[in-house]
Amino acid sequence: MSNPGAPPSGTDGRAVSYAALHRFTAMAFARAGLSDADAKTGADVLATTDAWGIFTHGTKNVRGYVRRLQAGGLRAAGRPHLAAEGPAWGIVDGDSALGMVTSVFAIQTAIAKARACGVAYVGVRNSCHFGAAGYYAWLAAREGLIGLSMANDIPSVAAPGSRGGITGSNPISYAVPAGRHPPLLLDMSTATVAGGKVYAARTRGERIPDTWLIGADGKPTTDPSGYPDVGALQPAAGHKGYGIALLVETLSGILSGAAFTWRVGTWMWDDGSQPTHHGAAFLAIDTNVIMPAPEFARRMEAMVDEIHVAPRADGVERLYLPGEMEWERHDRAMKDGIQLPMDVLASLQEAAKMTGLDWAAFTG
Amino acid sequence: MSNPGAPPSGTDGRAVSYAALHRFTAMAFARAGLSDADAKTGADVLATTDAWGIFTHGTKNVRGYVRRLQAGGLRAAGRPHLAAEGPAWGIVDGDSALGMVTSVFAIQTAIAKARACGVAYVGVRNSCHFGAAGYYAWLAAREGLIGLSMANDIPSVAAPGSRGGITGSNPISYAVPAGRHPPLLLDMSTATVAGGKVYAARTRGERIPDTWLIGADGKPTTDPSGYPDVGALQPAAGHKGYGIALLVETLSGILSGAAFTWRVGTWMWDDGSQPTHHGAAFLAIDTNVIMPAPEFARRMEAMVDEIHVAPRADGVERLYLPGEMEWERHDRAMKDGIQLPMDVLASLQEAAKMTGLDWAAFTG
Repeated sequence: MSNPGAPPSGTDGRAVSYAALHRFTAMAFARAGLSDADAKTGADVLATTDAWGIFTHGTKNVRGYVRRLQAGGLRAAGRPHLAAEGPAWGIVDGDSALGMVTSVFAIQTAIAKARACGVAYVGVRNSCHFGAAGYYAWLAAREGLIGLSMANDIPSVAAPGSRGGITGSNPISYAVPAGRHPPLLLDMSTATVAGGKVYAARTRGERIPDTWLIGADGKPTTDPSGYPDVGALQPAAGHKGYGIALLVETLSGILSGAAFTWRVGTWMWDDGSQPTHHGAAFLAIDTNVIMPAPEFARRMEAMVDEIHVAPRADGVERLYLPGEMEWERHDRAMKDGIQLPMDVLASLQEAAKMTGLDWAAFTG
Repeated sequence: MSNPGAPPSGTDGRAVSYAALHRFTAMAFARAGLSDADAKTGADVLATTDAWGIFTHGTKNVRGYVRRLQAGGLRAAGRPHLAAEGPAWGIVDGDSALGMVTSVFAIQTAIAKARACGVAYVGVRNSCHFGAAGYYAWLAAREGLIGLSMANDIPSVAAPGSRGGITGSNPISYAVPAGRHPPLLLDMSTATVAGGKVYAARTRGERIPDTWLIGADGKPTTDPSGYPDVGALQPAAGHKGYGIALLVETLSGILSGAAFTWRVGTWMWDDGSQPTHHGAAFLAIDTNVIMPAPEFARRMEAMVDEIHVAPRADGVERLYLPGEMEWERHDRAMKDGIQLPMDVLASLQEAAKMTGLDWAAFTG
């Protein structure tokens, strides 16, 4: 989350309040059959993600989730539950519930277990797209713990030398409480860039750097015109991103009993009546069990303070900690509302139509 | 460890057997005051690292460790011990013992705790340079567990926009047992490349890619001639490598109670009589506690098999899993011996001189 980029497209210049966006999202989910509690959970995740400025993973996707809820591939009445557990670990069966509902349940489980044991691992199966990994890591940090969050997805990212996708974008995120500073919060895909960036360049008819994509022949290309039908994204830093993606696949897909690599369903495009069987993994470390809370806070503050005053390259105004840009956007969003990009607005209006709601009534 | 690169320099064409290299290393450590058991542990780590072909982190560094042992910054009689612990976590005080001895103790502690609890975290303080992170992750995989291993170091890697080093190279490694296949084994620096690669280019008078280094002004440079006195390495994939480096710093340096960022001593160049206070962190997950062993093995094998037969770019002979190249080198090394690069040989001869040993007597 420390590389903000620009919103994927323009906005209409009007800000939507967080409260209105949250209310609409919760109402849309409720219309799609979710309990009030689950609808609120989904809205918490997606509206917060928009407030961070991560518009690719926020309420833009309500439409897609509603489509699956209406078609049955996501079960509105699904109840995530522990399929197996020990004091410091658990495996959550998502029961095809909304990915956000399952993932919040899973990180809360990890938090509770880490409070007792110091550290906990929770794997998730029978889930779906879970949105921004960082949200769940942050839930742990909000409670004073270190959180890690990751998930697999259908292959779209190459291995070094491959001709097509080998791993999913397999995001990994962590959050660390940092005393008087906002929590450190990194949320990264293991690809060089998100597919949406390649697609945007294609739409604008632009060339891309040769580290983003491979073409049909498996070689790096600067031509995005065939994406996403041909080629695949390149892993971040080559074998390093590929290697991390396989760790994410192991902890999210293999050890959890979820689908892995090509066995995962595409949540956005395929038959909405079928579950996707995504996997995810969450780790929590309760630093308070290990080190007195004031000492951990003081040490984190010292590191952050040191980075804030470190020498900068000419023209660089600030050095950022992971998540700092997102927290500043979040503060602005809570004060001034959120400038939603046009593609998000269009998607929300579509979601409104699908659930019999009037978008303008929420924001007008 | 999946990016092998070439050995940093030529060899003399003669192979040294693993047994001879191990014997020499253990003897040199014993002459520097280590117990036979600790000397063997150090030799296990460093000779295995050479067998993997990771010559920058193997026996080449015996000389530097012996220097610190003789000067007192490393304590030959140091005894790593648990300073604090719970069922699923521990903090190891390294007592300024050889980093390899402390790290083997720490991962073994993590393995034992993970066997009981499913997952365990062990932080380390009062340690020193620990060699190749992958060795300790692999110890867990050898016992059937997933292992993670990481450490901090004195800042040498920039943050996006910084003018100098902000984090250490902060390596992170994992290993995963993979049934009939060798364990997956990734060992990566969070910098784009190791400093040794920049230095080698400088020695050869060559330019470097503009993603490796920043110059004195904090901007990317293709000129390595000032390294390492000016500039800093660039983080792998920009904010992603930087973000991971800060997670490594948090788990290895902050939560363990070790030194962090600029408080860490340089193990290679500074006063050998002073401890460096490096930190490290180890995680182990016992998959057998969570999923039946044959099922986990079958699923890992399925993923590896799938990657082995995936379509490749023209001219690419194989797709590698992390660690596969290292395991093939390891097999060859055990059969045919190890072709040590000239700089390693020179360093070993120096270590022999420092400990009153005759290198030729071990290899002749």
